[in-house]
This record gives sequence, C-alpha cells and structure tokens, in this order.
Amino acid sequence: MTQQDEKWMREALREAQAARAEGEIPIGAVVVWGERVIGRGHNMTERLHDATAHAEMIAVTAATQSMGGKYLEGCTLYVTVEPCPMCAGALNWSQVGRIVYGAPDPRRGYSLFTPSLLHPKTVVEGGVLADDCSALMLEFFKSKR
Amino acid sequence: MTQQDEKWMREALREAQAARAEGEIPIGAVVVWGERVIGRGHNMTERLHDATAHAEMIAVTAATQSMGGKYLEGCTLYVTVEPCPMCAGALNWSQVGRIVYGAPDPRRGYSLFTPSLLHPKTVVEGGVLADDCSALMLEFFKSKR
Repeated sequence: MTQQDEKWMREALREAQAARAEGEIPIGAVVVWGERVIGRGHNMTERLHDATAHAEMIAVTAATQSMGGKYLEGCTLYVTVEPCPMCAGALNWSQVGRIVYGAPDPRRGYSLFTPSLLHPKTVVEGGVLADDCSALMLEFFKSKR
Repeated sequence: MTQQDEKWMREALREAQAARAEGEIPIGAVVVWGERVIGRGHNMTERLHDATAHAEMIAVTAATQSMGGKYLEGCTLYVTVEPCPMCAGALNWSQVGRIVYGAPDPRRGYSLFTPSLLHPKTVVEGGVLADDCSALMLEFFKSKR
C-alpha cells in the first residue's frame, strides 16, 4: 500500500458516501490512469432498478469511454469492497492492470471462486482503508434492520 | 427443450445475426416473460468500446427497465452461447428464473467455476439449437483468421 493508494481509495470512499446519501448500499469505485481519475461510479442498483449497476461496472464503462478503447491495462481500479463475481468478470474482460480494494467480502467476494475470475496479469491488493470502507457498510446494514 | 424454447432461441439468433452484421462476435440474447420479449441485446463490445457490453448484460438491463424492478424471477433468458462469469454473475443478481443457452463455451463458460456462479433457484438448460448457434461463431472466427 502506498500513499497514492490511500489517496485514491479516499476518492472511492467519496463515491461510496454518495451512494449512501441516495439510500444505496455504500460502495464506490474509481479508475485511475497515471495521475488522473478516468472513471468513477457508485452503486445505483435501486435508483436504476438494475442489478448490474454496481460501482465497478459503472466506473469501468466510464473509464473505457475516457480511453476510447475497451482495455484498461495501464489502469488501477480502486473499490471500497472486494468485487463480486460479475464485477470480477468485467474487470477480467477489461484486462485492468491492478485492483485495490478496501474491505473483504467473505460472503459474496470473487475470491471465493476457482479458478480465478480475474485476468492472469491483474495484480490485486486488498485491505486499503478497510476499516473506513467496512464501517460505511456496517452502518448502512444496521440502519436497515 | 420445448417448441417455445426453439422459438425464443430463434429470436436470440436474430440478435446474434445483428451482431455479426456489425462486425461483433455474434452472440444474442432475449429475456422472455410469459409470451413477451421484455429485453433483447447483442454483443456491442467493439462499437461501444466497452468490454462489459455483452448480449446478456444489455438484455438483462433492458428487461429490468421493462419490469420496473431489478429482479427477473419469472423470466427466462435465452442466449446463443453459454454465459461468461460476468454475465452469470449479473444473472445471479437478477435472480432470473431460467436460463436457456445454445452452444457451450468450454473455454470461457461460467460452468467452469466452482461454487456455482448462478443463483441457486435458477434452472438451466443448454444445447438448444446449439448447431445453429455455434455455426455463427465458427464462421465469424474463421473469417477473422
């Protein structure tokens, strides 16, 4: 984990907070290329009535639009929670260079599955600002009980 | 396999042919509810520069818009080729009632992974009009060589 990683994870957390403000499960993501955010997104499944509208899917689609191509080899995706299998599959197709996530998801995370759902060249790091990321989730689910 | 299944798979094949006409990998999908197609899509990854723009993703999003809700429990998704993990994950989140696919995909199909990527309540049938579905794919990849 680098200082840069913390900086960009704070951007992903800002997206997660935007989701929370809209009554969505608070997960956020940004795609970074060099020193720039080229795609961002937060969970919008309720607002869009669309189970595919996860933070990572929105951020990946936005990033590929910025790049003008469907591959994200030189990019890093930051996301506040470990991606689900759908999002891992999307990240595989996009060949994203690196994935940095915050809180693990021991119930729905991609890492429960074999063989790996990610592209063999993608580097992964988990646990960046994990406490901040999971606090948002815990608070949300507590408020729903 | 029922006559209805063949009828709707021919609709999915029509979508796959539309993809072929646009120079895309020829995969098509429709979502059926009762006697109606409520979502359709074909692969658009090249045109949209978006690795997530698979036939199933587009059809699922369209269907949830038609339904006004994010769940597709009473619906069947017809797709010409076995879904990839990303699409299987999306179908899981949508809780689609049934999946009918044409050709298997022994290299990229969702069924290579454990535990299952699909929702436990989703019923699956493969091999409907499989020869027609795979002929489109073989012809496409032959033309690219």
